Amino acid sequence: MEALLRQSRSLCPFLNKTSPATLRSLSTSTHVTHTAPGGGAMSNLQIIARRCPVMGKALSVQSARSGHHALAGAFGGSRAYHSKVPRAKLHTSRPEKAQAMDLPPSAAPYVPMSEVKRVEEQREMSRNAGPPAPPKAEQFDYNGFYHNELDKKHKDKSYRYFNNINRLAQEFPQAHMSNTGERVTVWCSNDYLGMGRNPQVLENMHQTLNKYGAGAGGTRNISGHNQHAVALESTVAKLHAKEAALVFSSCYVANDATLATLGSKLPNCVILSDSSNHASMIQGIRHSGAKKVVFAHNDVADLEAKLAALPANVPKIIAFESVYSMCGSIGPIAEICDLAEKYGAITFLDEVHAVGMYGPSGAGVAEHLDFETYASGQSTKGTVQDRVDIITGTLGKAYGCVGGYIAGSAKMVDTIRSLAPGFIFTTSLPPATMAGAKTAIDFQMQEPNDRRLQQLHTRQVKSKLAERDIPVIPNPSHIIPVLVGSAEVAKRASDLLLEKHKIYVQAINYPTVPVGQERLRITPTPGHGQQYQHQLIEALESVWQELDIKRTSDWAAMGGFVGVGVKGKEAVEPIWTDEQLAWGLIDEPKEVRSERVFERIEEVGPRAVAAAA
Amino acid sequence: MEALLRQSRSLCPFLNKTSPATLRSLSTSTHVTHTAPGGGAMSNLQIIARRCPVMGKALSVQSARSGHHALAGAFGGSRAYHSKVPRAKLHTSRPEKAQAMDLPPSAAPYVPMSEVKRVEEQREMSRNAGPPAPPKAEQFDYNGFYHNELDKKHKDKSYRYFNNINRLAQEFPQAHMSNTGERVTVWCSNDYLGMGRNPQVLENMHQTLNKYGAGAGGTRNISGHNQHAVALESTVAKLHAKEAALVFSSCYVANDATLATLGSKLPNCVILSDSSNHASMIQGIRHSGAKKVVFAHNDVADLEAKLAALPANVPKIIAFESVYSMCGSIGPIAEICDLAEKYGAITFLDEVHAVGMYGPSGAGVAEHLDFETYASGQSTKGTVQDRVDIITGTLGKAYGCVGGYIAGSAKMVDTIRSLAPGFIFTTSLPPATMAGAKTAIDFQMQEPNDRRLQQLHTRQVKSKLAERDIPVIPNPSHIIPVLVGSAEVAKRASDLLLEKHKIYVQAINYPTVPVGQERLRITPTPGHGQQYQHQLIEALESVWQELDIKRTSDWAAMGGFVGVGVKGKEAVEPIWTDEQLAWGLIDEPKEVRSERVFERIEEVGPRAVAAAA
Repeated sequence: MEALLRQSRSLCPFLNKTSPATLRSLSTSTHVTHTAPGGGAMSNLQIIARRCPVMGKALSVQSARSGHHALAGAFGGSRAYHSKVPRAKLHTSRPEKAQAMDLPPSAAPYVPMSEVKRVEEQREMSRNAGPPAPPKAEQFDYNGFYHNELDKKHKDKSYRYFNNINRLAQEFPQAHMSNTGERVTVWCSNDYLGMGRNPQVLENMHQTLNKYGAGAGGTRNISGHNQHAVALESTVAKLHAKEAALVFSSCYVANDATLATLGSKLPNCVILSDSSNHASMIQGIRHSGAKKVVFAHNDVADLEAKLAALPANVPKIIAFESVYSMCGSIGPIAEICDLAEKYGAITFLDEVHAVGMYGPSGAGVAEHLDFETYASGQSTKGTVQDRVDIITGTLGKAYGCVGGYIAGSAKMVDTIRSLAPGFIFTTSLPPATMAGAKTAIDFQMQEPNDRRLQQLHTRQVKSKLAERDIPVIPNPSHIIPVLVGSAEVAKRASDLLLEKHKIYVQAINYPTVPVGQERLRITPTPGHGQQYQHQLIEALESVWQELDIKRTSDWAAMGGFVGVGVKGKEAVEPIWTDEQLAWGLIDEPKEVRSERVFERIEEVGPRAVAAAA
Repeated sequence: MEALLRQSRSLCPFLNKTSPATLRSLSTSTHVTHTAPGGGAMSNLQIIARRCPVMGKALSVQSARSGHHALAGAFGGSRAYHSKVPRAKLHTSRPEKAQAMDLPPSAAPYVPMSEVKRVEEQREMSRNAGPPAPPKAEQFDYNGFYHNELDKKHKDKSYRYFNNINRLAQEFPQAHMSNTGERVTVWCSNDYLGMGRNPQVLENMHQTLNKYGAGAGGTRNISGHNQHAVALESTVAKLHAKEAALVFSSCYVANDATLATLGSKLPNCVILSDSSNHASMIQGIRHSGAKKVVFAHNDVADLEAKLAALPANVPKIIAFESVYSMCGSIGPIAEICDLAEKYGAITFLDEVHAVGMYGPSGAGVAEHLDFETYASGQSTKGTVQDRVDIITGTLGKAYGCVGGYIAGSAKMVDTIRSLAPGFIFTTSLPPATMAGAKTAIDFQMQEPNDRRLQQLHTRQVKSKLAERDIPVIPNPSHIIPVLVGSAEVAKRASDLLLEKHKIYVQAINYPTVPVGQERLRITPTPGHGQQYQHQLIEALESVWQELDIKRTSDWAAMGGFVGVGVKGKEAVEPIWTDEQLAWGLIDEPKEVRSERVFERIEEVGPRAVAAAA
């Protein structure tokens, strides 16, 4: 097949010019009105090929020679079944109505149910009627396939073993293992602010559960739309200073559904995607069928070159993140907005790891970039956040619940609401979940001290790790990626931390990070005070010694790697500046010391802070 | 455009034979290596058309006449930019590294963050550097696009207006509207059994919320795996008598992720899909890129013909449902299992609308088909459910919570767990949600009386509607699709029921059902007792009179439609037989009367039944 394709390419300008992706799409899409010479539906590629004066002849020859249709591709190869299945039957077996339909589900004309009480007779009939069964030996080995796929994962060390971690609301940030008596400290949760145990959130969820029950009971269109959805979407829109918002089952679904819908509906859309984008965006872009152009991570020059190379009037979406969760880098949002305006693109910004964590209202990095404007209640017109077209976020990380959303213009949101199957055809989030998430957003809009404390703890842990020569991939955010550089060692380090030191930090291996960049990803919370930090640092020191893992100085001696041990790269300034951490809390912001901010947060902070002392 | 297509069809055998769906797909898919005469990317349809000796010429003429390329369609129309963008530029604009990558997300080599404090300078730099910006007038009009998409929905009456329905746990099946004092009775919820307000479910959720907080705090791999996930998946596996199960955010995600993963990973996989399948399966199949063969709804002969036409050793998945939610028809599960065995396919059965509702344990229709075997605790080896390879179900309908799952062999489940991005890269369901769903499944495994009562209420409502000559699309399940036959009238009927009669039944219009088959979809629950039924029937009678909607006899006079008014079609036997309804409750099952079963359920039934009297 491959050989044939290569050979054909040299002959045919169409095959030569057409991308493999398009060829694959053409060869796997069919319409049954066309019948392949060997029976069965023809692929669109076959139909095109048959029309070509050159290839048409070549195909006939090839077909006659091998006994099956060349370029069929989708089939595994030549099979004897052709001679056993009556040809005529194949042609009469595809009635007009049985064509491939990619329409939303529809109730087809009524067909009476097969009488369930006569199952046994029908089984016999079915066994006796129809074409003879092909020999079992020829059938595909599904169990062998599953076995092989799992075997590959085991062999490349990417097979995942889940740790049974039960985070205890009253003992945050502690959890118990499958043995309920066994406590561990969780240092890798995305419940960054401990909002999952915030008393106001829980109280509101209890009340809503009592009054409105456990589930929504339907899709948004059919009995699943309610005041909780209205209030939550209104709050999200307000958070991001946008006209409207739409809530999904998760932000995975929000990203997937929104990009897939826009990319497939915008005529000839091109999606420009940061090379470090999350799986949900990669899937959404793939599902859209739109042309995808990947630009180098956070590289605005590369992005501009790619934008400039596209026709001006072609719709373009620039898809990127604010905080990249596995390395903690931060996207150049303002610069990307500039480029979007210049080249007529729209911006799609994933703030999943930033909402609740940055900005005076917790709206994310885009808000944070205009900190004073938002903090002082000035007009937000023209701010970075205002210029971003589509912001997506989660209710399942800093907001401590579950679910995701998009925010943007009313017409954009209404378009996604009206067209995205992943929104339309799924049960709404439960009323209590939506009420809890709304409470969490409201709380964080009023109260910035949890996220300041989180930032202070992040600074402290990063600083202590630097003192111990333990390698942290430098970044300006709240993520602490501790470089290990080996899948096996990363897992052993994680296991050792858990078993010996009662500290849970998941090893992050391929495919989540590239091979060789395996790491422990540490995420402090407001609850990870000095005592917990001390335990963590001593445990890491012990593990680094026991497993003889490279130190920052080792990486430096090798010339540095992913920013670790690279001269000058270590001094990345945190995105939360000293002034912003001190804003409204202490009077001498220019000379702020962490201790002073810390003290003030303790004095004025919310209840969550109590656990942090 | 439409006129041109009609005209072209009469000339061209290709256009004539190709379905509108395929034409649409061809006209909206592009590859930019081909440049349209006026510039810009060409659609695949244009590429094919340009090769045709007849159409090629016609297109040139048309193009010259109108100033833009005929059949382009996907473009918004003629644009002046063509002459300004150098042609060569389009071809040199795709550097090697900018190819589509469909890899899992990876942290690219470290790139220092763009200095956020220098935003303003950078903005200037970005504006001043790089190629000159194209004139604004040439840029794509995104707002115009959103406006047009919404306008189309308004014009074809498929624009959705959500009703604000707040289902009250303590007043089930009542809800309040946006005005909290305004009560309506909900007759279209998928909380079929009222488990969303089941006291045991709520109690367990409250306790879990208190102890483990609002959210899971991470993906299953990173701190989001816990005893609740383990227990829920173990319960689901037990429910379906399978080795293993896997829980997802929703069954939309479960179907999408599982079919997309298997269809893309199984080499040369072909997916055979029932023509009435749900959007989630259609999306999953599309996302897999696998070859799709649609068989006529519930037509085993058509399915067999299609299976027989495929090579024996090619992996095949037969994807279908047990209860089709919009018409209530039931899939021929046993017969499809027979065909799967005969032709070496695996079966993928969506039991979303059946779990909790059928079978002695509530495992669905597959279990129901071997009612006595399961009810008497005999070996389930060789039963229909045992023979189905992959069962998918929801926790958000009869189980009253939210979430979805797959169940099957341990290796299959582990493969999906290890490969499906939609599972891997998303936050776990909250502990309380999983605990509530597990309680609901356990409850329904022990207690079949809610679903029996639901079936009795369904029988009663269907019977009363038949007496009033109000047309119900006949089916053997718990769904009551009342035929209206017009989008506008269905919406008016729904609005009238809500406003005048305080009864909420959502109108189901295109694209959820085909045009002309618009309906009101009524779903009784154990809570919809005689009083509520009386109100419903009188309200429907009033609406049918007021809007002069066709009766069953009217459809009969027209020869019948979708089973309504078709001689002999009305007498569909319910899948829950009299004997099964009476099983274990009364001694004389052969002469069972509904009243007797009803009385016994009241005597022995669970608390939910109290509301039904």
